[in-house]
Amino acid sequence: MAKQSDDIPPIMGHTFPDHHTFHHYSEMNLDRIYMDYNATTPLEPEVIQAISEALEDAWGNPSSNYIAGAKAKAIINQSRENVARMVGGKAEDIIFTSGGTEANNLVLHTAVEYFKRTCKAQEQGEGQQNRSKGLPHIITSNVEHVSVKLAAEHLQKDGKAARVEVEDIIAAVRPNTCLISIMLANNETGVIMPVQEICQRIKSLNKQRDWLRILLHTDAAQALGKVRVDACELGVDYLTIVGHKFYAPRIGALYVNGPGTRTPLYPMLFGGGQERNFRPGTENTPMIAGLGKAAELVTSNLSEYESHMRSTKLYLEERLKAVFRDKIQFNSHFPGSDILPNTCNVSIQGPRLQGWRVLSNCTRLLASVGAACHSDSANRPSHILLSCGVPTEVAANALRLSVGRGTTKADVDAVVEDLRETVQLLEEMV
Amino acid sequence: MAKQSDDIPPIMGHTFPDHHTFHHYSEMNLDRIYMDYNATTPLEPEVIQAISEALEDAWGNPSSNYIAGAKAKAIINQSRENVARMVGGKAEDIIFTSGGTEANNLVLHTAVEYFKRTCKAQEQGEGQQNRSKGLPHIITSNVEHVSVKLAAEHLQKDGKAARVEVEDIIAAVRPNTCLISIMLANNETGVIMPVQEICQRIKSLNKQRDWLRILLHTDAAQALGKVRVDACELGVDYLTIVGHKFYAPRIGALYVNGPGTRTPLYPMLFGGGQERNFRPGTENTPMIAGLGKAAELVTSNLSEYESHMRSTKLYLEERLKAVFRDKIQFNSHFPGSDILPNTCNVSIQGPRLQGWRVLSNCTRLLASVGAACHSDSANRPSHILLSCGVPTEVAANALRLSVGRGTTKADVDAVVEDLRETVQLLEEMV
Repeated sequence: MAKQSDDIPPIMGHTFPDHHTFHHYSEMNLDRIYMDYNATTPLEPEVIQAISEALEDAWGNPSSNYIAGAKAKAIINQSRENVARMVGGKAEDIIFTSGGTEANNLVLHTAVEYFKRTCKAQEQGEGQQNRSKGLPHIITSNVEHVSVKLAAEHLQKDGKAARVEVEDIIAAVRPNTCLISIMLANNETGVIMPVQEICQRIKSLNKQRDWLRILLHTDAAQALGKVRVDACELGVDYLTIVGHKFYAPRIGALYVNGPGTRTPLYPMLFGGGQERNFRPGTENTPMIAGLGKAAELVTSNLSEYESHMRSTKLYLEERLKAVFRDKIQFNSHFPGSDILPNTCNVSIQGPRLQGWRVLSNCTRLLASVGAACHSDSANRPSHILLSCGVPTEVAANALRLSVGRGTTKADVDAVVEDLRETVQLLEEMV
Repeated sequence: MAKQSDDIPPIMGHTFPDHHTFHHYSEMNLDRIYMDYNATTPLEPEVIQAISEALEDAWGNPSSNYIAGAKAKAIINQSRENVARMVGGKAEDIIFTSGGTEANNLVLHTAVEYFKRTCKAQEQGEGQQNRSKGLPHIITSNVEHVSVKLAAEHLQKDGKAARVEVEDIIAAVRPNTCLISIMLANNETGVIMPVQEICQRIKSLNKQRDWLRILLHTDAAQALGKVRVDACELGVDYLTIVGHKFYAPRIGALYVNGPGTRTPLYPMLFGGGQERNFRPGTENTPMIAGLGKAAELVTSNLSEYESHMRSTKLYLEERLKAVFRDKIQFNSHFPGSDILPNTCNVSIQGPRLQGWRVLSNCTRLLASVGAACHSDSANRPSHILLSCGVPTEVAANALRLSVGRGTTKADVDAVVEDLRETVQLLEEMV
């Protein structure tokens, strides 16, 4: 494949290849090496199998009384058990949603409803005194996924530093704080957040609060399938599950610690009573079947997946250091932080080595400079890295390399060689 | 398969078969005849093929810049074209959603937002006079799907008669009416509603209204794939599309006549900008691929599907009349109403012939007494039939028989024989 012009940033919708290029790619498919597993993963063959079987055999409406419905219902129940087991919850704690965006929005929506209803009950208890409680207050980090950030936009909120410090979170709490939403691991840097410690501190604090409990949410999209996730051990009220990040299909779920009993949950949608009315709509049996199978695989094989990804990433970092020496800058090696075993956010320093420019000139590597849903702004430095204190010129050169279950050392060697050639080419152009 | 006890109503969750029965069913699968195509349809083999290919080959994140993302994006664009063509719209009028429930909720949510924003703008124009416009007012029929009925529950609304009369709708309009939502065809009776005429009348009315346009919505879930549906010809602003009713997977879409330009559309979810921010969340490429393929099949083959279903249903009605004579009562033969070509709502009159009792004693027929999502209340007469003026004792005996593309005359013969034997058995028990 010919080197593309290096001056056109690869903005989505502008660089759609023409038919010829597209075909060319198909033929060269095997030569490309995917290292963007944080954007999305392929599906495990067993997951595709589970989906296909459900598409063929379990198409009955799960609400139908007869056996075709019961068969679909049984698959859904089994998947619910598997998803619950993956996150250390009970089957009744799992609400299937269309994906992570919906699950995150459902939590934000619930927090606001919970605040309003608590205010109302409080006012009635005080004999219509109508003591204003103000607006609901939400605490998030400033590196959250946009589905949390934007859903919270119309609310009073504090965005805490990129590498969340427990003390900062505690200090941000106000009387009207109703939710703390901190992702379990960041999608760009792989930094694992101290969610368990935050939950412990907030739970002590909740005991002393007189009228409004602080609800605790974590978006575990990037952590599941990479590190052990146990909702009970973390102590969260809500945990977001996103299938397509752990070799499952495009569907999600929300773990809620006792939905509607121990933990409030107010639906956004109204309809036919499915998911105990928390999330109505005819169940997507095949996608749910795939999610369940992928969850089962994670439960059984996590330590194997994790150690493979970790050793592959360590090898990648070693090779990068060996080839690029003092030009290389790792953007998430913060002292005291744990990092996802598969994520390497790295900058190769140099005036013409912006991330988008390097990637669009690589012939084998497929990776990104940040979250896929920000790919329109790929030629601007990542706001997440900037919030982490990475200098602008380093952030502009960042590459997010994320390895998967099947990434080999040979893949790493090929990618590093591809990067070496690309960097050489770009530097010669100067 | 042994006759079941006829005294246990088949309430979902209570009659889940034990392992033995389940196996037994699997072996006898071929003997059962499905006549509940209004609850859900199987998937066409070509649709399964499209889904499988996307699962295998187009798993890239559609927002990713590189070619794997572009491939997914191309599939989504193609499907958007196909879905638009099926409903006579433009590609940019199609917003993919998780299903019909979400699409319907999105319309109701939009209507309320539109009302609020219009009120606010109006008040500002009047120099902060704060002339109260009251609550948003919505007109629906009282036979709508629960996703419309329940989503509208917190609003001021009028439920018009089951067989919607245009004059009733016009008479129900108030100054604060912001939405009319009338399903295109009813799921239980198959009655086709006069949506086009309502739209024409309301559009004339809209020209005379000074501040608030009445938005027009139809839920076409039951009509698509059975009769021709053209959103422009109907004149609606919104039209709900539900995959699993026309041999597509569990996903939906909303047609909006110029979303955000000619027609307001306010998102319920916030996130990564997908679907032009009207409905964010990483796109479900395989399900969208399946929806697109199924839409293509409908566009190409509708008249063939329609005439096959119509002749099969007519044959079914003839056979029922021949066997049950004056005991038979068709519940949707209203003079002047068009009925879906596949739907036969029928009661066999007799004291022990309640719909649920007949169905649970049939050995071959799989059908329902009403909407699948109401199957918990299967032993109560359908509120939809009661609203249509069907007497309680007739409604209690109703069977909703809905045929599909593949239903044969031999299937009809077998089902009618099954019903004859079942009725004989139940009558002998009296």
